[in-house]
Amino acid sequence: MANGHPPVAQTPLAIEEIFETYREDLEEIEAHIRQNLDSEAPLINEIGAHILNGGGKRIRPLLLSLCARLAGYVRKEDLVLGSLIEFIHTATLLHDDVLDEADLRRGQKTARRIWGNHASILVGDYLYSRAMQQIAAFQNHAVNDVMAIACRKMAEGEILQLCASNQPLLKETDYLKIVEYKTGALVAAACKVGAIIGGASPSQQEGLYQFGLYLGIAFQLADDHLDYSATRNNLGKTLGQDLMQGMITLPLLHLLQSCSHEERQQLAKKIESKTIEANDLVRITTMMEEYGSLQHTTACSQEYIDAALLKLDSFPDSPSKQALVVVADYMVNRDR
Amino acid sequence: MANGHPPVAQTPLAIEEIFETYREDLEEIEAHIRQNLDSEAPLINEIGAHILNGGGKRIRPLLLSLCARLAGYVRKEDLVLGSLIEFIHTATLLHDDVLDEADLRRGQKTARRIWGNHASILVGDYLYSRAMQQIAAFQNHAVNDVMAIACRKMAEGEILQLCASNQPLLKETDYLKIVEYKTGALVAAACKVGAIIGGASPSQQEGLYQFGLYLGIAFQLADDHLDYSATRNNLGKTLGQDLMQGMITLPLLHLLQSCSHEERQQLAKKIESKTIEANDLVRITTMMEEYGSLQHTTACSQEYIDAALLKLDSFPDSPSKQALVVVADYMVNRDR
Repeated sequence: MANGHPPVAQTPLAIEEIFETYREDLEEIEAHIRQNLDSEAPLINEIGAHILNGGGKRIRPLLLSLCARLAGYVRKEDLVLGSLIEFIHTATLLHDDVLDEADLRRGQKTARRIWGNHASILVGDYLYSRAMQQIAAFQNHAVNDVMAIACRKMAEGEILQLCASNQPLLKETDYLKIVEYKTGALVAAACKVGAIIGGASPSQQEGLYQFGLYLGIAFQLADDHLDYSATRNNLGKTLGQDLMQGMITLPLLHLLQSCSHEERQQLAKKIESKTIEANDLVRITTMMEEYGSLQHTTACSQEYIDAALLKLDSFPDSPSKQALVVVADYMVNRDR
Repeated sequence: MANGHPPVAQTPLAIEEIFETYREDLEEIEAHIRQNLDSEAPLINEIGAHILNGGGKRIRPLLLSLCARLAGYVRKEDLVLGSLIEFIHTATLLHDDVLDEADLRRGQKTARRIWGNHASILVGDYLYSRAMQQIAAFQNHAVNDVMAIACRKMAEGEILQLCASNQPLLKETDYLKIVEYKTGALVAAACKVGAIIGGASPSQQEGLYQFGLYLGIAFQLADDHLDYSATRNNLGKTLGQDLMQGMITLPLLHLLQSCSHEERQQLAKKIESKTIEANDLVRITTMMEEYGSLQHTTACSQEYIDAALLKLDSFPDSPSKQALVVVADYMVNRDR
């Protein structure tokens, strides 16, 4: 099996077993997260705790830890880097909620709803700069570079997304670049940082970067799918929110490419004029079923997962490799 | 004169002469700024150019360059670091304008007024992360640390300021900490980075950090003064905007400490209830004249300038030292 595909079907481990197996790592990560909420400004610690305790699964720190182990990691202190990546991820969530005017995240009130937009923007800035400060303190140039590039790409991806909003003619390649930057880059960075501190070779580091990148893209595509298919209960948010905020995602792009000329014109007009309403969403989801847009999105997400798993081929089979396969599956088949 | 005070009175150089003397450095900095506006997202380059060409005097890059020369700097490439600090400063301006709901900056429409709050927040995030990426690429741990700490302090200062807004009981020490963090930290970092790349000793690096810190605080106090004394023409903004946004600054703190019990109660009530109006501002500025609050602020600003200049004592007299004295004076006696 060493050079074949990871044995997904043969080892049907559940994500809960992975969380249990690596509980010690995850608890250490939690401890670091708590330790870092020590600002002189109580508001920072309060907002930070609210969003950091909001039910996030610490997927990025877990991926970092597993990639480090895959690469032969022995020391333990560097797992603090996982907690810093979680800080950065959290910073982006705080800003996202302001930009999306979101009231709920994972079923809980958003920070902006409780403490306002100003506090959310500033605490986002703080969590990000605090994390970058601690990353710099590790004095590892390779890690600095990976993290700084990821943060630049995330910011650029958000802007590309803003520019593409309400644009029904968005090309799929441009959409995928947005996804790569805004979501893929940080997951990729988590995996590569794990590879670096685990002592992987440059080509292995690059392989795990690609693994994370494809995984992140697959994760975002699954999320785009959920936005048109989830019920309020299992996602903690309302159907079709992406489109209501002007975001054009893969299911909609597929629908626009597949529907009749007349349907496309009607839909494009509503998107461009920002006049989508609740009954339009019902019609859009019905059309998506008719034209197979959600199935297409799932298939596309699975293709990225397959491409990601191929990148693990060069590593011999091991518990951490098996765990990465389970985490990969969980990321596209979850109920966040 | 080597160990005495810098010869301010003897060499009454004007800031224009300094800009002319170091024109080559400043032009190089401008070139780097332009080169860095090369994102794949045209919106970033457009907004970046708008705010970066908005009449900023590049004081931080100039201080970096002068401190580097003071420390014996010979190479020239590292001046790019000055342009990166200007990027970070610009990022904070973009976010500040969103938080302050500002329509004008230096007499021009703000980016948020032209392109909206979302774009301003995101381009701020981008300019910051782009700069941090390029700073990391220098692979200088000392520089990384200085910059990362400065960014963390700036974010923390903004939050401390938010928490102190509309609080008439704010203590002067707490106010000065906010000023140190939000404004002093980046000026201090610019000076210390100059010292590092100029090859200064650790104690000289620390001295120039303190020089920049005191300078930055003096600059902010002068700015706080201007907010209550400038006319629309010479500041490009409206009188009393700080208080209208809930910001309690030194002139107001002095007034609150100096006026009668009854006046204080009335004023505090209006501040707390956020009911300050235009005619209150007229009354407040009249009271500030009566109680010498603006003179107190100027004196306080001058004290920080004096403390800053003392930090230059350990350096022998030189053109760059004389230039630093002129820049210091300009920073508190300017007409931005």
